[in-house]
Amino acid sequence: MTEYLTDIEIAQTNKMVMIEEVAKKLNLTRQNLELFGNYKAKIDVATLADKEATGKVILVTAITPTPAGEGKTTTVVGLGDALNKIGKKAVIALREPSLGPVFGIKGGAAGGGYAQVVPMEDINLHFTGDFHAIGAANNLLAALLDNHIHQGNMLDIDVNRITWKRCVDMNDRQLRSIVNGLGARVNGIPREDGFEITVASEIMAVLCLATDLKDLKNRLRQMIVAYTRDNEPVTAGDLKAEGAMTALLKEAIKPNLVQTLEKNPAIIHGGPFANIAHGCNSVIATKTAMKLGEYVVTEAGFGADLGAEKFLDIKCRQANITPSAVVVVATVRALKMHGGLAKNQLSEVDLTALEAGLPNLLKHVSNITDVYHLPAVVAINKFPTDSEEEIALITAKCQELNVKVVLSDVWGQGGSGGVALAEEVVAMCDSSENNFSYAYDNEQPIADKITEVVQKIYGGSGVSFAKSAKTAMAKLEHLGYGKLPVCMAKTQYSFSDDPSLLGAPTDFTIEVSQIKVSAGAGFIVVYTGDVMTMPGLPKIPAANSIDVNESGQITGLF
Amino acid sequence: MTEYLTDIEIAQTNKMVMIEEVAKKLNLTRQNLELFGNYKAKIDVATLADKEATGKVILVTAITPTPAGEGKTTTVVGLGDALNKIGKKAVIALREPSLGPVFGIKGGAAGGGYAQVVPMEDINLHFTGDFHAIGAANNLLAALLDNHIHQGNMLDIDVNRITWKRCVDMNDRQLRSIVNGLGARVNGIPREDGFEITVASEIMAVLCLATDLKDLKNRLRQMIVAYTRDNEPVTAGDLKAEGAMTALLKEAIKPNLVQTLEKNPAIIHGGPFANIAHGCNSVIATKTAMKLGEYVVTEAGFGADLGAEKFLDIKCRQANITPSAVVVVATVRALKMHGGLAKNQLSEVDLTALEAGLPNLLKHVSNITDVYHLPAVVAINKFPTDSEEEIALITAKCQELNVKVVLSDVWGQGGSGGVALAEEVVAMCDSSENNFSYAYDNEQPIADKITEVVQKIYGGSGVSFAKSAKTAMAKLEHLGYGKLPVCMAKTQYSFSDDPSLLGAPTDFTIEVSQIKVSAGAGFIVVYTGDVMTMPGLPKIPAANSIDVNESGQITGLF
Repeated sequence: MTEYLTDIEIAQTNKMVMIEEVAKKLNLTRQNLELFGNYKAKIDVATLADKEATGKVILVTAITPTPAGEGKTTTVVGLGDALNKIGKKAVIALREPSLGPVFGIKGGAAGGGYAQVVPMEDINLHFTGDFHAIGAANNLLAALLDNHIHQGNMLDIDVNRITWKRCVDMNDRQLRSIVNGLGARVNGIPREDGFEITVASEIMAVLCLATDLKDLKNRLRQMIVAYTRDNEPVTAGDLKAEGAMTALLKEAIKPNLVQTLEKNPAIIHGGPFANIAHGCNSVIATKTAMKLGEYVVTEAGFGADLGAEKFLDIKCRQANITPSAVVVVATVRALKMHGGLAKNQLSEVDLTALEAGLPNLLKHVSNITDVYHLPAVVAINKFPTDSEEEIALITAKCQELNVKVVLSDVWGQGGSGGVALAEEVVAMCDSSENNFSYAYDNEQPIADKITEVVQKIYGGSGVSFAKSAKTAMAKLEHLGYGKLPVCMAKTQYSFSDDPSLLGAPTDFTIEVSQIKVSAGAGFIVVYTGDVMTMPGLPKIPAANSIDVNESGQITGLF
Repeated sequence: MTEYLTDIEIAQTNKMVMIEEVAKKLNLTRQNLELFGNYKAKIDVATLADKEATGKVILVTAITPTPAGEGKTTTVVGLGDALNKIGKKAVIALREPSLGPVFGIKGGAAGGGYAQVVPMEDINLHFTGDFHAIGAANNLLAALLDNHIHQGNMLDIDVNRITWKRCVDMNDRQLRSIVNGLGARVNGIPREDGFEITVASEIMAVLCLATDLKDLKNRLRQMIVAYTRDNEPVTAGDLKAEGAMTALLKEAIKPNLVQTLEKNPAIIHGGPFANIAHGCNSVIATKTAMKLGEYVVTEAGFGADLGAEKFLDIKCRQANITPSAVVVVATVRALKMHGGLAKNQLSEVDLTALEAGLPNLLKHVSNITDVYHLPAVVAINKFPTDSEEEIALITAKCQELNVKVVLSDVWGQGGSGGVALAEEVVAMCDSSENNFSYAYDNEQPIADKITEVVQKIYGGSGVSFAKSAKTAMAKLEHLGYGKLPVCMAKTQYSFSDDPSLLGAPTDFTIEVSQIKVSAGAGFIVVYTGDVMTMPGLPKIPAANSIDVNESGQITGLF
């Protein structure tokens, strides 16, 4: 059996070039950069203010995934390298990993195999400090809020209706549900509270949708932190918090430049949750990449029903971005799972299960082409366990239905494993007429927007709203938030809200349990069941295996 | 009345030079640095491994302070600039400010007036991320600890005897006393808990005393996080946490290089609490400065009874550093306070009160000269409200007693206001015989070490130990921690443990309420009353006035 190197082994064997060398490929000099050591830099976007954002945007999304994920980030990195290999000036634009999962079970998030961004240890650990800055801004707001109450509560905040939580960039279940302010009077007001992981903070979504510092401050000001005893929203602006928060975020708002293993430019910036938030990297990063490259390859979290939908209906709409092409990543393993194979059998060749799983892929593709009117290509992300018959079957079935399909082996071969995909993507960008449209119109009532997503994108028959959700919708429309887009918090493991419903189910309804507003980010969060915003650590955390030697080399990071 | 510019106005008017220019003064090139933008860098200490640390160390300490502080940091910066002005190759070595106080009442901590380190906004906000890294390592350990209990508690940890707390770099009284792990079983184990501000984490003390990555990991491993139901200590090593924590700290351990307003090199690194910890910048920073400069000017927290005592008895002893001279900073205002003037009358000329306050200064000076056998000079840190008669009186009285005294106006004039002090310091470094000795011998029982500090340094008659302290001492000696130095957690506002006892009191006893060990840092913490390790915000927090404009310029930061 072939021995494979681990991701960190491949990354550490690779010899990086100085980040100024990478920047040079984008015509950036040190005047445009703020260096962070030799291999990371922030891009000073103010120096690019006059440039037009003309690069073509390629979204990489995926079918409904297995718990291991289908390799979106790996495909983005490999496609970017492949585009550069065929002579195109391409920039990739990714999300930053969260520290929490690195020490838990998931490990890092910087691509895999020979399609990685480096320095992977730095990217997976503190990187340039953006998430720490978001955490500090989040927790400053929380401290100001509780201090306001402690000092007299002039705003008449209802202690039972505080919506703002503290955060920490760690998987720490112990902090999910707490009572704080205990002990003496000088320790604050006793109340129920809880922590979220930093990536779930609304500030993360705000930072990722803001267009500049002014817009950032304005969005921060509008964030709702609590309600008064008269049921009126209390904002960060009411607490005079937005200036200090913006000061904390003034560096974090600048996108980060690193390199792929093949020394091509990668912009990595922001990383909001993909359920209660929109799950894409920052608008500033994407726009900066569009100013610097002919082609911009980017990604969105989870499967296309969540990730692509939010990328297109929230991010592209707010930022006025028209994507040129969409890549839908599929794996043989995931298709077999959708065809009924158990998770421990996915390495077995099974053409029947594979074919039975194809409707999941086809539904995602038709959403892109028929709802959003964007050109799409399926990228089969090759795994070592895939058989040739299986790949041939997917290819044949897709071709029968006029669905473009390409085998991608960027994990095993880097950019050269993605040349066919790159050529197909370039052809789509160049030739296709672009009739991009959104899945729903923002001007409709909230309930109608949700129903359109459920019927058009998920293939469901309708929506059932809990009473609390109905009350919340009416209240939010009354408060003037009715014209915001909807951000669906749904399981990533099914088109429906039932994770066990694989494939491409129909005739299901989506149960909406609660509706909230993220007034700074500018969307309505639609809950379809419980959403965990603070993960826990597993029985044997990855942290136990991480180590660093005397010369600072890290081992055991996945 | 003269109009003074604020610190941030002076700092922002100043034109910085690129950090490589500053590094050049120390014969450092980019190969020795990791740049953080144009004006900050980390020093890659591995590249300096072969250099000998031969620079002469000058400690700046102070008399028993007023709540506003007496200007130690300002004096360090100004003395460093003055030494450079008279042709000496001097490096200053300071502590990093904590984010919490910046948004509270204290404001920043980067010197003042024309004796500042810059970029002051960056230094006061996230700087190079060191404190965020310490916070993440601290909170990873906490998450691993609670996860261990949640997953079965194989180590038999007593949930009522967990000593490790979570931390946040924010003034947030609401988190002082909490109950966490509430709700469903999946949310962990309900227990009492609390947060500290990041600078109070033992990891801060560990980082500041570690000599390299290996020593850091070893110290982290030894930190005690809880006790078992059999009363045995549980360490970070028992939780297999030290590798991942070291990985999180591998950049934070490198000292940071910035510049003074006069473009001289400043190393700023670490910042432990000065009560429950030793209150000095890192050993690595001081040693690096000693490798790079002929003279190293550094500081220690609070007055000399706490700051200098711990600098000399803990840091210098652990790191084998022999200081060459000590500067005791005094202000006319503080001396008048010690002479009985009320805090709102300190601007009034009052020679009687001034003279009555002198014993406080003289006791601090004699501690340096007679206990530690080091040469000392008094620096009168000039304030705009000081009168010439007052300064003349202090000078005359000191000279009568053969105490060296110099007027310093670095706040108003920068380095040129410190030339006289610099010349005196150089003379002391060059001519004095150095008979440095510690205040106590580590080999004694814990109680005897405490008694020696109280009698020799504080001028007290003795120590009274609470029963809990006696039990703890016996237990710690039984566990093998008896030979560690003691770290006194005492009010900074008096030689005694009663903050209202000003001047140079005698015939008092110190009441020791509790004794704990910081086994990773390597000292015994001696509590003389309650110590607040999580500050709160004031009624009108400084955060309310901090703002940032569209081009990223910060205002309202003090």
